[in-house]
Amino acid sequence: MRQDDEEGAPLSPEELERRLRAIGAERYHSLHPFHRLLHGGKLTKGQVQAWALNRYYYQASIPRKDASLLARLPTPELRREWRRRLVDHDGDGVTPGGVERWLKLTDGLGLDRGYVTSLAGLLPATRFAVDAYVAFVQERSVLEAVASSLTELFSPAIISERVEGMLRSYDFVSPDTLAYFTPRLTQAPQDSAFALAYVKREARTRAEQELVLGALRFKCDLLWAQLDALHFAYVEPRLPPPGAFRPEGM
Amino acid sequence: MRQDDEEGAPLSPEELERRLRAIGAERYHSLHPFHRLLHGGKLTKGQVQAWALNRYYYQASIPRKDASLLARLPTPELRREWRRRLVDHDGDGVTPGGVERWLKLTDGLGLDRGYVTSLAGLLPATRFAVDAYVAFVQERSVLEAVASSLTELFSPAIISERVEGMLRSYDFVSPDTLAYFTPRLTQAPQDSAFALAYVKREARTRAEQELVLGALRFKCDLLWAQLDALHFAYVEPRLPPPGAFRPEGM
Repeated sequence: MRQDDEEGAPLSPEELERRLRAIGAERYHSLHPFHRLLHGGKLTKGQVQAWALNRYYYQASIPRKDASLLARLPTPELRREWRRRLVDHDGDGVTPGGVERWLKLTDGLGLDRGYVTSLAGLLPATRFAVDAYVAFVQERSVLEAVASSLTELFSPAIISERVEGMLRSYDFVSPDTLAYFTPRLTQAPQDSAFALAYVKREARTRAEQELVLGALRFKCDLLWAQLDALHFAYVEPRLPPPGAFRPEGM
Repeated sequence: MRQDDEEGAPLSPEELERRLRAIGAERYHSLHPFHRLLHGGKLTKGQVQAWALNRYYYQASIPRKDASLLARLPTPELRREWRRRLVDHDGDGVTPGGVERWLKLTDGLGLDRGYVTSLAGLLPATRFAVDAYVAFVQERSVLEAVASSLTELFSPAIISERVEGMLRSYDFVSPDTLAYFTPRLTQAPQDSAFALAYVKREARTRAEQELVLGALRFKCDLLWAQLDALHFAYVEPRLPPPGAFRPEGM
């Protein structure tokens, strides 16, 4: 954050939203070459396995970060909202949550579930990026923690593109294995509408607004870094680090 | 860590050392293709700048991790040993420490010191890996924190190779700009001899020994991940993430 930004006049809530959306337009991981390959049907099954295996750790960590934020929220209204996110990801014991649905995807790709959940084949860079997210939500202000969830503003577009592209291109995925994504198309807009209204209301000074913008940049960076690591290890130059998952034949 | 390892008979101290050295032989970042290019004179000045800029954050964070360990050490003897490391890195106000000497390198490469220390051009993956190291030392046992410093067992060899290779190959480095490394050739063996004796003495059960081995693997992984990110952004496929340093002409 630059000094002059921090000390400037507050932005209008509409201008804050415009700047948040501009960050997405510049930095959201839909622009990453790995996603273009994934959605365009250009990856091998092994490369898609590597993506699903690594992304599992991100999915499995979302409830950790949401629970740590939940524990710090001051009102029943806010806690109910954040509790709903936990239900979405952890399920209610009847309807499977997002983590369980993600494992349906790794199952469908032929990965052993014990291997996936052991994290034994995870890229270290995935672990560092995801753990940085959990630590950010634990350590920063509630305002920044809420703001870091705002990438969901941009996710419905990428999910639609992903599901359509993957179903069209890969004979090893089916609507059933991609079942993770369908509920996200309604959950994410509900989540992000709440979070966006929250930061527009609660970030009153320019310094607070800059923290909100910085939190979204940070979140875009860590999603991007996960794809950099996948691309490096499995696409080009294709050098998985010692100990990481190696698809059959690699 | 596998259950059977954890429950096995303790290794002899010599066998523990052998296994620690085997981890270095397999995973230390001297084996990374980026280092081969760096030491072999195959990088452009811009690529060497990117390495020095990113590695600055690692260097600057070493005293943070050492201070957090120092604060948890139980005896004057251990604290004196760890205090020496702080002196090595932070200096004594007369002789410059390692952080200051690293900035001589970035100065010598033509990077603006304010830009370097602002971390504005840092690769997010560098930040995540380095912060993971600091968090590991803060959160894990003293035994694991000490063990994570054991990559210094392997650093004198890489430093000799680096200094020799860089001086031979690059007209933009000089003995003066590489002054960081000279004291490390005596400091690192002193540090690692102490840490190795400590873990051989203090890791008594097999479970403790496996934690020691795991800590060194973790440390190798985070050094490796930093080079993966540099290689990806600046060598191949050469795609620096949004906001990261871009060398002139890139």
